[in-house]
Amino acid sequence: MLRFGLFGAGRIGRVHAASLAAHPRTELAVVHDPVEVAAHEIAALYGGTPTGDADAILGDPGIDAVIIASPTPTHVELLTACAQAGKAVLCEKPIDLDLARVDACWEDIKGLNATVMVGFNRRFDPTFTEMRERVTGGEIGRLEQLLITSRDPAPAPAAYIASSGGLFRDMTIHDLDMARFFLGEVVEVQAIGANLIEPYIAEAGDVDSAVVSMRGAGGELCQITNSRRCAFGYDQRVEAFGADGMLSAGNQTATSVRRSGAAGTETAAPYLHFFLDRYATAYRAELDHLVICMEQGLTPSPGFADGRAALVLADAATESMKTGRTVRVDS
Amino acid sequence: MLRFGLFGAGRIGRVHAASLAAHPRTELAVVHDPVEVAAHEIAALYGGTPTGDADAILGDPGIDAVIIASPTPTHVELLTACAQAGKAVLCEKPIDLDLARVDACWEDIKGLNATVMVGFNRRFDPTFTEMRERVTGGEIGRLEQLLITSRDPAPAPAAYIASSGGLFRDMTIHDLDMARFFLGEVVEVQAIGANLIEPYIAEAGDVDSAVVSMRGAGGELCQITNSRRCAFGYDQRVEAFGADGMLSAGNQTATSVRRSGAAGTETAAPYLHFFLDRYATAYRAELDHLVICMEQGLTPSPGFADGRAALVLADAATESMKTGRTVRVDS
Amino acid sequence: MLRFGLFGAGRIGRVHAASLAAHPRTELAVVHDPVEVAAHEIAALYGGTPTGDADAILGDPGIDAVIIASPTPTHVELLTACAQAGKAVLCEKPIDLDLARVDACWEDIKGLNATVMVGFNRRFDPTFTEMRERVTGGEIGRLEQLLITSRDPAPAPAAYIASSGGLFRDMTIHDLDMARFFLGEVVEVQAIGANLIEPYIAEAGDVDSAVVSMRGAGGELCQITNSRRCAFGYDQRVEAFGADGMLSAGNQTATSVRRSGAAGTETAAPYLHFFLDRYATAYRAELDHLVICMEQGLTPSPGFADGRAALVLADAATESMKTGRTVRVDS
Amino acid sequence: MLRFGLFGAGRIGRVHAASLAAHPRTELAVVHDPVEVAAHEIAALYGGTPTGDADAILGDPGIDAVIIASPTPTHVELLTACAQAGKAVLCEKPIDLDLARVDACWEDIKGLNATVMVGFNRRFDPTFTEMRERVTGGEIGRLEQLLITSRDPAPAPAAYIASSGGLFRDMTIHDLDMARFFLGEVVEVQAIGANLIEPYIAEAGDVDSAVVSMRGAGGELCQITNSRRCAFGYDQRVEAFGADGMLSAGNQTATSVRRSGAAGTETAAPYLHFFLDRYATAYRAELDHLVICMEQGLTPSPGFADGRAALVLADAATESMKTGRTVRVDS
Repeated sequence: MLRFGLFGAGRIGRVHAASLAAHPRTELAVVHDPVEVAAHEIAALYGGTPTGDADAILGDPGIDAVIIASPTPTHVELLTACAQAGKAVLCEKPIDLDLARVDACWEDIKGLNATVMVGFNRRFDPTFTEMRERVTGGEIGRLEQLLITSRDPAPAPAAYIASSGGLFRDMTIHDLDMARFFLGEVVEVQAIGANLIEPYIAEAGDVDSAVVSMRGAGGELCQITNSRRCAFGYDQRVEAFGADGMLSAGNQTATSVRRSGAAGTETAAPYLHFFLDRYATAYRAELDHLVICMEQGLTPSPGFADGRAALVLADAATESMKTGRTVRVDS
Repeated sequence: MLRFGLFGAGRIGRVHAASLAAHPRTELAVVHDPVEVAAHEIAALYGGTPTGDADAILGDPGIDAVIIASPTPTHVELLTACAQAGKAVLCEKPIDLDLARVDACWEDIKGLNATVMVGFNRRFDPTFTEMRERVTGGEIGRLEQLLITSRDPAPAPAAYIASSGGLFRDMTIHDLDMARFFLGEVVEVQAIGANLIEPYIAEAGDVDSAVVSMRGAGGELCQITNSRRCAFGYDQRVEAFGADGMLSAGNQTATSVRRSGAAGTETAAPYLHFFLDRYATAYRAELDHLVICMEQGLTPSPGFADGRAALVLADAATESMKTGRTVRVDS
Repeated sequence: MLRFGLFGAGRIGRVHAASLAAHPRTELAVVHDPVEVAAHEIAALYGGTPTGDADAILGDPGIDAVIIASPTPTHVELLTACAQAGKAVLCEKPIDLDLARVDACWEDIKGLNATVMVGFNRRFDPTFTEMRERVTGGEIGRLEQLLITSRDPAPAPAAYIASSGGLFRDMTIHDLDMARFFLGEVVEVQAIGANLIEPYIAEAGDVDSAVVSMRGAGGELCQITNSRRCAFGYDQRVEAFGADGMLSAGNQTATSVRRSGAAGTETAAPYLHFFLDRYATAYRAELDHLVICMEQGLTPSPGFADGRAALVLADAATESMKTGRTVRVDS
Repeated sequence: MLRFGLFGAGRIGRVHAASLAAHPRTELAVVHDPVEVAAHEIAALYGGTPTGDADAILGDPGIDAVIIASPTPTHVELLTACAQAGKAVLCEKPIDLDLARVDACWEDIKGLNATVMVGFNRRFDPTFTEMRERVTGGEIGRLEQLLITSRDPAPAPAAYIASSGGLFRDMTIHDLDMARFFLGEVVEVQAIGANLIEPYIAEAGDVDSAVVSMRGAGGELCQITNSRRCAFGYDQRVEAFGADGMLSAGNQTATSVRRSGAAGTETAAPYLHFFLDRYATAYRAELDHLVICMEQGLTPSPGFADGRAALVLADAATESMKTGRTVRVDS
């Protein structure tokens, strides 16, 4: 039984706590949050000792691994401390909003041979996993084009937006990682952003809608479409187009009921709204991957370098949007 | 150029007139209707001489073929006269509502070697034609089950119902022919009817909803579902299930637009409402088949025997509904 | 924490054991199977004490409830004993293959006020549950027609068929219960069976394919299509057609990936093959329903009377198939 | 009856000839092609006098209108001559590959008040027409994103590529016009091209795959995906995403048959391969629009300015691809 510490008792922390409780070979040993009542709440539901003291995790040699689900600005310090304490780490994305800090973090931990995994959960979604395996297996021949549609049901509140690092670092980063999941490295990035949804996003200096075009190292073309709002749910689609055909991952509904009536036919329900519903299986599979890697001494993937690479692409997209130029990325 | 006479200037007569005008090797020479103004209207649109006198068609040796689209009670007499006059005939379904009259008609014409085709237009629908070819070609292995869904958008008016011969002879007859199109002969028929829609249908001694189960000569099972009303259009589906798979013919919409919104996703338009829209191509292909048969001296299909066989099945369904017994049919 | 005993350590017993282990308020206390090694295997996975002695369950006053997942011939005796021992019971379908034994069982337990639930798991499938709620809620107006397609991926082996009670009592019984789930009582039954798949099924005096037509007490028409074999997976669909529209429950695939290539477009995976995959959620929800009923003193549904009623319909279908007559059922 | 002259007896000329023959109020009077045998062939099929002499059209005052379906380099001269001769013109896209020549042409004809229509046939496709009407009608609220997928079944031969003006002016120009159809003016263009398919395309200095991102004058974002090859047919899709929902135009198949088998389920046929099949209705509706404008003295749309504007966008895309910069377009 692997004993886990959890930093962060918010929404995403709760997801990880539930996964830890459900996995047959892990247990939630300690939950940390500066807001101790939040830690207590999660511990009551999923087990473990609640604490407001980070050392209760870092200093406990009986804790094998840590999940970092605290606010982004705390990631680097915790990640470093955990690695130094010899614990395996699953760190939520992004590692940090500032590439320099990410690089400094790497300098601090690179000699430690630490087990570090970055929480790009979508790589573990059964639909995307299957699709990538089939692409890699050659089912559509050489991959030529990858189209990613990614729209959130509703924009985050103003307070969140202000500290989010901007659309590309906060939201698109998942899609940029998805692009790398299929393409490997990306060498060129173009982006256009727009403010179409909420004035407070523009006021924060951020955009709420964007399109990104990229070129993969193998010559593939890639497009990403983002919106902070989607009237019909959480719109998460991927289309891989190759020399011999296409694989498409459509949206998902809670049941397979469809309605036909005078107003229209074959109507499905709105798509699963909440990312925790849409990716519930992915979060569990993500943890399972880490567990297997720890048990078998393997290196988990996506790792630190993947976390960094997605941030590099997010920075490139930000720069392209501002300058109107295609940004080359050194892979 | 084949010269056609047309009996009947009603809704279905107009469809045939349009097909005759559009076909490159036919022309509408004479349109007959006792209501002469109706004949004039069609002639104005699609050419030909309007007339109220049937002999203008029957007695004109320059007329090669006749389409009988007049009311059902007139079919037998016209069909016999046309065959005797040496004209090819496309007679709308049913040949007659009374099997004895149909058989008497056959006695009268069987020695004439006449070219007679019965208007089961659905056999010429590209979707059903393709499906049957693929079934016949072995794509799903041995055919085991055939499911036919056939629902009209709205019930016919009371006056029509009264003289329709009942649901099975009027509406189901198309589905019974579709069953024969896929199965060849049918040997057992069960039916249950119900009155769920309009009281005037029950008052006319007819049903407005029905399910029919049948066994084909090759052992296949077949189900038909009928309704005189369908809120979402003209519901016309066929499912052929075999040892190796299934072919399904779904409904069709005018365009491929789908809508996703807060109330539901992937909503298509209501299905094509009117049988003349849904089967527009079929009517043209039906005529084309007759033309090719006439030009090449072939026997058109479906022929008189098919018209009779569908009526036999309609009678069997009616009897089964009344007696609660499975009715055996001698093929 | 409700403590459960489990009779039967076979395939379906294992499903229930897993549900018991996963439910936060139940535990598997004792697993019984005459083949003790099977009981040991399940206990090792999901907890509880394995035993070959039924009294270890029946005689233990600390056991609150029992799941009967043993072979059908043992159901009545166990159900009776459990009820007499004051335990709540979830009994797998069918209660028995012989209506007289079912009725005798009822005579024995009817005075005990026992909590008895029958395992028609499909009522708890989220898709069918949602569909029924929407029908009941009036979304499609008066329900007029119910179409149920139910095909197994592959026929059971000869030994199973021989003691199955026949297609209608073994397999169709789920669909007959589904019909009752939507229609309430059924008053007329017609059936045609066929042998199209495996000679050993015919040799056992059973059919492998069937169509059933029924009339509900409210006048609705219902059709069931069954096959013991389906090349493309476990084909489980329901279509509810009403005055104002239609709700359809389509098949389900493991992921939402679709393929387009030279051989065809929009190809989904074969449908979930195994009933335990297709109905995994349903089995868990079924248990949860029993737990809630026990906790709150409610009567679970479907109950003993539902188990009996489905068997009555299966007997009626068998009789109709043999006599060729519509069989009336006294509701 | 409007009398038409046709320049160009190639593949697209034949489509227009067929439309002219089928339209009830037009006739094909003269067919011109320097290869006279081609003109003869079309005249034999669809009527009219074949000729190798352009003046047989330009000099005949009885000819009301002209369709220019000859090679692109001849368009400007013919268009100018026709306008000067007082004939209405439907000119195939592009007007010319060189914007300066297009502008010079406009100088020559702008004072003539000529009726000039440019052949962006897709605007007349029933699916896209309906979709735009619904967007314009407010069904999805403010339009925020427009995604256009446009892939040809197979690349044109080397000889064609060499004189095509490049992917953007030859193929994307249709999609650029589609963007303008939905967005009105476009103000920013980004493009990335790639050579993934045929070496001879790269050798001709052209690309065979591309992604284009644009910003509309109203702030909307737009993406276009192009490929010269598509294994599963002619891939023509549009997705309009707005504040209140999304309208999608999917691909179309010849029939509605779908197959389910051991290798996959719900497989549709490959999409209609040939643009003449996919857009057959659009070509007829395009002609009908011109006819109605001529009869009622209206200005047809898309007109000369639309033909120019799409070329401006194609030039901008070409420039962006070469410079890596976002190109601003003056609307």
